[in-house]
Amino acid sequence: MTDYRRLRVALLGAGAVGSQVAALLRQHADELADRAGARLELVGIAVRDVDAPRETDLPRDLFTTDAESLIVGSDIVIELMGGIEPARAYILQAINSGADVVTANKALLATHGPEIFDAADQVGAEVYYEAAAAGAIPIIRPLRDSLAGDRVQRIMGIVNGTTNYILDRMDTEGAEFADVLADAQRLGYAEADPTADVEGFDAAQKAAILASLAFHTTVPLDAVHREGITAIDKSMMDAARHAGYVIKLLAVCERLTEASGSESISVRVYPALIDRAHPLASVHGANNAVFVQAEAAGNLMFYGAGAGGVQTASAVLGDVVSAARRHIAGGVGVGESTLANLPVVPVGRVTTRYQITLEVDDQAGVLATVAGILSEGRVSIATVEQTVIDAGAGEPAVARLVIGTHKALEQDLSETVDRLAASGVVERVVSVLRVEGD
Amino acid sequence: MTDYRRLRVALLGAGAVGSQVAALLRQHADELADRAGARLELVGIAVRDVDAPRETDLPRDLFTTDAESLIVGSDIVIELMGGIEPARAYILQAINSGADVVTANKALLATHGPEIFDAADQVGAEVYYEAAAAGAIPIIRPLRDSLAGDRVQRIMGIVNGTTNYILDRMDTEGAEFADVLADAQRLGYAEADPTADVEGFDAAQKAAILASLAFHTTVPLDAVHREGITAIDKSMMDAARHAGYVIKLLAVCERLTEASGSESISVRVYPALIDRAHPLASVHGANNAVFVQAEAAGNLMFYGAGAGGVQTASAVLGDVVSAARRHIAGGVGVGESTLANLPVVPVGRVTTRYQITLEVDDQAGVLATVAGILSEGRVSIATVEQTVIDAGAGEPAVARLVIGTHKALEQDLSETVDRLAASGVVERVVSVLRVEGD
Ligand SMILES: NC(=O)c1ccc[n+]([C@@H]2O[C@H](COP(=O)([O-])OP(=O)(O)OC[C@H]3O[C@@H](n4cnc5c(N)ncnc54)[C@H](OP(=O)(O)O)[C@@H]3O)[C@@H](O)[C@H]2O)c1
Ligand SMILES: NC(=O)c1ccc[n+]([C@@H]2O[C@H](COP(=O)([O-])OP(=O)(O)OC[C@H]3O[C@@H](n4cnc5c(N)ncnc54)[C@H](OP(=O)(O)O)[C@@H]3O)[C@@H](O)[C@H]2O)c1
Repeated sequence: MTDYRRLRVALLGAGAVGSQVAALLRQHADELADRAGARLELVGIAVRDVDAPRETDLPRDLFTTDAESLIVGSDIVIELMGGIEPARAYILQAINSGADVVTANKALLATHGPEIFDAADQVGAEVYYEAAAAGAIPIIRPLRDSLAGDRVQRIMGIVNGTTNYILDRMDTEGAEFADVLADAQRLGYAEADPTADVEGFDAAQKAAILASLAFHTTVPLDAVHREGITAIDKSMMDAARHAGYVIKLLAVCERLTEASGSESISVRVYPALIDRAHPLASVHGANNAVFVQAEAAGNLMFYGAGAGGVQTASAVLGDVVSAARRHIAGGVGVGESTLANLPVVPVGRVTTRYQITLEVDDQAGVLATVAGILSEGRVSIATVEQTVIDAGAGEPAVARLVIGTHKALEQDLSETVDRLAASGVVERVVSVLRVEGD
Repeated sequence: MTDYRRLRVALLGAGAVGSQVAALLRQHADELADRAGARLELVGIAVRDVDAPRETDLPRDLFTTDAESLIVGSDIVIELMGGIEPARAYILQAINSGADVVTANKALLATHGPEIFDAADQVGAEVYYEAAAAGAIPIIRPLRDSLAGDRVQRIMGIVNGTTNYILDRMDTEGAEFADVLADAQRLGYAEADPTADVEGFDAAQKAAILASLAFHTTVPLDAVHREGITAIDKSMMDAARHAGYVIKLLAVCERLTEASGSESISVRVYPALIDRAHPLASVHGANNAVFVQAEAAGNLMFYGAGAGGVQTASAVLGDVVSAARRHIAGGVGVGESTLANLPVVPVGRVTTRYQITLEVDDQAGVLATVAGILSEGRVSIATVEQTVIDAGAGEPAVARLVIGTHKALEQDLSETVDRLAASGVVERVVSVLRVEGD
């Protein structure tokens, strides 16, 4: 067996991900040494409660509540505690004491990324975060390295497993949101408090991380437009299916080019219609996928498990091996040197296609009125489907209009929808959904 | 504008890929400098004929027929000539003169990879080859870095666009192989001499590269079992569809573990049945995809364009940026340090499921005879479907048997099929196809 140099690895956190990382570091110690060119010696694990039951068998004397002492003298610090503090403070301590950092903490990177990356730059340390953007799916290296000579135009990601699981079951079983959510909670696919997932907060954090990387731009979390899936109901799912679409919660990161040539980006998370023939439409269950459109490479898709303790541990360990190789090779950071820092525009300045579903009075001239309002609002109609709804005896007849638009400016569209709602001929705006994928 | 250090880049070849690489290097010079931390100065392009028409506009004075002089003094040499010689000699010259090398040459790497990687190791140079395994799809970095802390169990790749295009059209249009091939040649999807694609030679080269990387093992090209798609006809396609499968040309790289715990690998290319619900089944047209099963990460899939000049150029430029960053950072190579070098077993020692289609005499006892031969041959039956074929007046009645097997040893299976063919009750072995994907 080769006599490798030893690297001291400190682990902060032994929950769903951390306990698996610790177990794999020990089980595969020899193979990891061959891959890394160094022995990865797990010197300790910081937790809140050293006596808490763990998912994997680990020697009790590895555990400590004293993270700060553990970090001192470590070559690689793996942060898997989650949350902002004390994770942020420990990561900064690690960087400043000369360690490289591996983290899966999307909440922290999406809010304090620039501070952490700057601190690392100052001292020539590296921060690895493959697991923070899409769990086990390798997406950071492809974006940072493989596509470094290309120009990313757009990313469309299914980056939240819980919401994809819910929407997929609503689609395949014709079930209602609340029922599937309750079931998902029972099965462990959704948390007791599902807000972070179903309101799109988790996806927004990942979108900020992906956009920052793809466009070499600092994307503050509050510049990410965010809508969740709680308003999606069975009737919208049915209508989408009928029209050849499926509804997915998408994280869209897009490069916008003005006529003048000046560039900006848009980052947004919302449920959108996507054509059933699109590769993203066949991402089922709790799986994730990131679809990337690049100028030269064309369309690429990266598919896999976006979460799960052991799956995420795979991405964390890949980062640990990279950090170890860098320690051995002894070079300075190999990241990009200059940020492009494109402006991030509000969602109102984005153009997409829409599908607008309205209930209108079923009388002559209504379609003309609706079409007139759309055209005044600079929203051009691509398709219209009208169905008369049986409103019951004595009730005035009602028709349902499903209008597919050409690409329109979000701001124009929302003003137009307001005007439609106030027009007198529209009984109800049933839904307004964006159509993504072309 | 930042005042970057300059790196001298030499390009060998300006064909489909090279001409696009040259154009992008010039068009995106400023952005590439920001990404790489260095100005990438294209110092010359070696070709056979400096006056040949090129796909992109490039200054005539960049061209030379003297590749050797061009290589001298270059920091990065991009080899896009193809073929074994003189590509091999030029790459070795580049390595020995201190340059890093970027190549897309799968034929060369699959046959002379060890020689080239050894030469690079000797002098601390790096050889980048993202474009050699699956064109524009980032698969090398994910395998080498992202999954470095995991254990790859199996790779199933659709790695040849021409054959996927042909099989996809046979599947969707019910067309015959020869007709689709002729059409593919007319449309430029297949070469005038389609042998390298349709006989699986191209896929076998890529399989050898992927398996070498995934299993840290030197895989000689002649250890790759290879079958092409020329025997696939409409009736096999129809039968596959009927059974819920689609036929794809797959490159399968698999880790095998004996009961004793000792490990070996199998690398093989053949047309196989794959369940329509499998993510690989929805890879259409000339697209490629690599499905990876890893111990911790679970199932991953990487999808995109496996060929095309500009698409492949994206992967090449990503490698060029990586090489430049390494020059700037000044570290030594960051690849893995030790090979596992698992034995590569012949296809006979592999187990898969099979679908065997036979024409048999339609008389009592035939099924029992067939079942007996299978069972003696250690091939266990999972499903049987029998249909009587109308053989025409006066002809003896014939039945078609479609037998799905459980996992069986390839060697047992092929001996059993020989025994079936010689048994007297089997009129014709219509097809024997492997079933992959579980
Ligand atoms: N779970 C996934 O599938 C997944 C996927 C992608 C990314 N991530 C990210 O990975 C990180 C870890 O997630 P997880 O699911 O493993 O979390 P978790 O199960 O909640 O585990 C958190 C661990 O951190 C420890 N910890 C928390 N606060 C601490 C403190 N102040 N001092 C010391 N230790 C502390 C806990 O100690 P005790 O055990 O003593 O309480 C626990 O071991 C998060 O950033 C998460 O966003 C998770
Ligand atoms: N095309 C794809 O989609 C694709 C995808 C993945 C990988 N690749 C790989 O990329 C490499 C290049 O492919 P390609 O399609 O670009 O090839 P190509 O179109 O045939 O171009 C080959 C180029 O190399 C030059 N060349 C050939 N032999 C030479 C010699 N002895 N000395 C100097 N120059 C020589 C040719 O010069 P002239 O122009 O003067 O004849 C030509 O410019 C191959 O290894 C291929 O396997 C290609």
